[in-house]
Amino acid sequence: MLRTHTCGELRLSDVGKSVTLCGWVSKVRDKGGMVWVDLRDRYGISQLMAEEGKAAPEILNTLRSLGREYVVCAQGEVIERYAKNDKMPTGEVEIKLGKVEILNPAKLPPFLIEDDTDGGDDLRMQYRYLDLRRNPVRAKLELRHKVAQAVRRYLDAQGFLEVETPVLIKSTPEGARDFVVPSRMHAGEFYALPQSPQTFKQLLMVGGFDRYFQIVKCFRDEDLRADRQPEFTQIDCEMAFVEREDILSMFEGMFRSLFTEVKGIDIGEIVRMSYDDAMRLYGNDKPDTRFGMQLAHLKGYGNDLTSGANFVVFDSAEAVIGLPVTGAGDYTRKQIDALTEWVKRPQIGMKGMVWMRFEADGSLKSSVDKFYDQAALKKWATLAGLQPGDLLLVLAGDQGQTLKAASELRLELGNQLGLRNPNEYKALWVLDFPLLERDEENGRWMAMHHPFTAPRPEDLHKLGTDPGAIKANAYDMVLNGNEIGGGSIRIHDRQLQAKMFEVLGFTAAEAEEKFGFLLNAFEYGAPPHGGLAFGFDRLCALFGGSESIRDFIAFPKNNAGRDVMIDAPGPIDAIQWKELHLKNA
Amino acid sequence: MLRTHTCGELRLSDVGKSVTLCGWVSKVRDKGGMVWVDLRDRYGISQLMAEEGKAAPEILNTLRSLGREYVVCAQGEVIERYAKNDKMPTGEVEIKLGKVEILNPAKLPPFLIEDDTDGGDDLRMQYRYLDLRRNPVRAKLELRHKVAQAVRRYLDAQGFLEVETPVLIKSTPEGARDFVVPSRMHAGEFYALPQSPQTFKQLLMVGGFDRYFQIVKCFRDEDLRADRQPEFTQIDCEMAFVEREDILSMFEGMFRSLFTEVKGIDIGEIVRMSYDDAMRLYGNDKPDTRFGMQLAHLKGYGNDLTSGANFVVFDSAEAVIGLPVTGAGDYTRKQIDALTEWVKRPQIGMKGMVWMRFEADGSLKSSVDKFYDQAALKKWATLAGLQPGDLLLVLAGDQGQTLKAASELRLELGNQLGLRNPNEYKALWVLDFPLLERDEENGRWMAMHHPFTAPRPEDLHKLGTDPGAIKANAYDMVLNGNEIGGGSIRIHDRQLQAKMFEVLGFTAAEAEEKFGFLLNAFEYGAPPHGGLAFGFDRLCALFGGSESIRDFIAFPKNNAGRDVMIDAPGPIDAIQWKELHLKNA
Repeated sequence: MLRTHTCGELRLSDVGKSVTLCGWVSKVRDKGGMVWVDLRDRYGISQLMAEEGKAAPEILNTLRSLGREYVVCAQGEVIERYAKNDKMPTGEVEIKLGKVEILNPAKLPPFLIEDDTDGGDDLRMQYRYLDLRRNPVRAKLELRHKVAQAVRRYLDAQGFLEVETPVLIKSTPEGARDFVVPSRMHAGEFYALPQSPQTFKQLLMVGGFDRYFQIVKCFRDEDLRADRQPEFTQIDCEMAFVEREDILSMFEGMFRSLFTEVKGIDIGEIVRMSYDDAMRLYGNDKPDTRFGMQLAHLKGYGNDLTSGANFVVFDSAEAVIGLPVTGAGDYTRKQIDALTEWVKRPQIGMKGMVWMRFEADGSLKSSVDKFYDQAALKKWATLAGLQPGDLLLVLAGDQGQTLKAASELRLELGNQLGLRNPNEYKALWVLDFPLLERDEENGRWMAMHHPFTAPRPEDLHKLGTDPGAIKANAYDMVLNGNEIGGGSIRIHDRQLQAKMFEVLGFTAAEAEEKFGFLLNAFEYGAPPHGGLAFGFDRLCALFGGSESIRDFIAFPKNNAGRDVMIDAPGPIDAIQWKELHLKNA
Repeated sequence: MLRTHTCGELRLSDVGKSVTLCGWVSKVRDKGGMVWVDLRDRYGISQLMAEEGKAAPEILNTLRSLGREYVVCAQGEVIERYAKNDKMPTGEVEIKLGKVEILNPAKLPPFLIEDDTDGGDDLRMQYRYLDLRRNPVRAKLELRHKVAQAVRRYLDAQGFLEVETPVLIKSTPEGARDFVVPSRMHAGEFYALPQSPQTFKQLLMVGGFDRYFQIVKCFRDEDLRADRQPEFTQIDCEMAFVEREDILSMFEGMFRSLFTEVKGIDIGEIVRMSYDDAMRLYGNDKPDTRFGMQLAHLKGYGNDLTSGANFVVFDSAEAVIGLPVTGAGDYTRKQIDALTEWVKRPQIGMKGMVWMRFEADGSLKSSVDKFYDQAALKKWATLAGLQPGDLLLVLAGDQGQTLKAASELRLELGNQLGLRNPNEYKALWVLDFPLLERDEENGRWMAMHHPFTAPRPEDLHKLGTDPGAIKANAYDMVLNGNEIGGGSIRIHDRQLQAKMFEVLGFTAAEAEEKFGFLLNAFEYGAPPHGGLAFGFDRLCALFGGSESIRDFIAFPKNNAGRDVMIDAPGPIDAIQWKELHLKNA
């Protein structure tokens, strides 16, 4: 080793030791008589020093020639500092230099290698190797490492086997768009990169590997929204001979243990909520349950507290939804106007917003009190659980759009009111999703999760008659308003799987061509099975108190799917084009 | 859970318990009055039984309807067996059935799901999910899981961080052929799949992540030789602020701990041997050191024990190499003739073979004793360390070809003599490889490892004058005659790296286009670093006592790069062609 210690480990108890440290120059302070250097590595910062007249002149010369980010090997004696720094773990000592060597000089970095940097996103991406030296970025990737090891330890202890599934597979028509890989040996044919190992893990179940997991890269060639990556990582799991409850409790256990091990906190109860309840109470199938403000359906879901008052806006609306805002009874007209403008933005699309205040004296004041008397408003307040000092914001319109708008407004107010603390955690399972969604454009049914999801047994009989009413035997895990994982009990019966492909509009020939291997496998003794996958990038981000995944990935791509550091994708040469039997269209 | 226990865990101490098992029907024996079923899962086999007249008739009916590989859920009482089977861990008990349910019927499998199967390779590949049910295949993948977890535990404990590097990267001209991925968003451009994360792990070192590892998929679009896979897995590692010795001892430690943890054996000393010595002693840079039979250079390497005897074959040969075969002095003429034919095969390419016997009486008998007298032959015997009762086989020709032939013959005899026991292990490090190889066809130098390998410091000065004489600061780990890992200290100096690209025939513009990001990174403070990678598939195979990697991969591809189970690669549809801006050439 070129070093005896790291830059993070020396303490008062090491005083007197002769040590050698290696690292990057973080700062040089030259006070004339004394020169100090902060030397940084992955483990911390140590202070080096040399004194004019005492240290050899070549040491002082070398120190004075150092620039930021020079790589240095420094040998010396650990001494107690005169002026201690209690903000640094090594702050009680410094190294009196006996020798110093420049291992590699460095050009001036294009941005500051400090916790708060002056580098913008683009620059940081281009020089990712420099950004990685910054503590916050390094800490995020260290956290990712810890979470991965903890996941493996838990699942290994539970008898799961980590099995690598192939990356070069076959393009299938379901789900998102595949990345494909032209075959040189088979002209005109392509491999596809997996969107998930879904069919392979099911085949492992057919193969008797009753507890499988993998932390695995997956790929989707989608137009990238902010904070999506074309390659992403999943914790992928599957179990055989289980029912839904077994999977929920197994992965609740994993989740709980991750929180204990990695963050040292008890995540508390992981409640279960039906999809229908999530939509009704939060307007959202991934509700943020760190705060209340559940929706009050003044009209809709069997209620009607608004009709008959000649208020045309509400009378003509399918749904009237109140959002109670605790303690916001003193919002000014200006604040409410701002929120009204907020819901009228095209992204939200509401035409307006009604408000009602529950005054401290018990009276109710509303923007529509010429239509609704105190008795009527009182009913609203009761339904919404409003207390004196609270505010009710009311939206009206189509059921779907109004739910969505109410959900967005709830989250926005959660942000404004500081109710969404990233270091507070609330997880829940959302259950009983609809099995199918109607694709109105193409007039056909689409699988809401994927075509291998089993219907709830009690809904099976509706497959031929009322497919839209079938609930899936599926589950999502939601953490702080983010879907971080999901899965289902799978179909393990060949006939049912074939029927499902038929409902989804595959001809028998198409189903056979694309999924014949799975349908075949189901004929040779497929066990009942189910599983789930967690989005590992997002999980790590949330563990790190962040909503953005990018810094939890060592070498992320930008929103155009480019790696700007290595400049990929890029051209290939003429020989490659020829060998792949391809030309530009 | 659909089961209370697995099929592998019930013992005499469980007698009296009511249990539920799930699994696959391995065998049904119907003796009229009694029906027995062997039920199998990943954990073992349990025997179910029902007695005519005592069990409910529907149980007997169900049992009699079972076929091989039906999936069954069986409930009953654990009882002591009348006729115990000491070959099965569960062989002292059986389950007296109270209830049995067919969870899924099965068609008759195309081959036997038993340790010895009647299925050929092609059939087993096509129905891989059935092959996975067989104990030997399952055990190999369980071993792989164990090795992976043990590797991670060791490296995690040593402060290595597992960092995921990207899969969608850029095509580079060095090494093997890349698989590429057409970009939909950037017409005419391609990502490439990594042949290894080489440059990324070096960038992680520049980024201060001084101990990195990853168990990672890599890709090479090569014409597949037997037992090569287009996608394969590496244990990829890199360290900063180290010298060669640090890396050797770190990974010797890992290797030693893997053997202790996974196989419960002490691997013994891991000797170090220079490339030159390996070539001289074994004719091979990955010698199998489980057995001796080191080569005796009768002519060459500074020796000449054959000239001046008017034996034209040896006189005209560059090299004469003797292979001592211990205890083979009694080989018959027929045996020797067969070996002679073996070396004359085109794959080996020798013109003939000379032999010499060291008789029990001390005399030497040779096929060339009309040219060489006893005194001359005695010198051969002494050089080769021959003892009475031993045989010396002698090959002659060009140095390179003869070394290779002698090495092949040595391995063949090792096989024939049973000296290559797959359950005995001998590992060594081979050091000091040549840095460069001459590509005679194109008249240029090629990197023997890769262009980032550092020369040995003492050879650096030869770069401009005698590049062929430079030894690399590189190392391979060899186990039982297989290269299972290798690496090097890397270049961390921009000028040296640029010079290396120049020696390898890259123009400055090409180097900049392909590796500009790395050369740039080296300007911002690259630490001294080095690392290595182990071939994980091969390592697992050798741990499992096998030379073939295929069964250590859950879903391997065949020699044409096809996954015959899912039938990949395959066609893509017209929309995909269009979106990717491609057409068939």
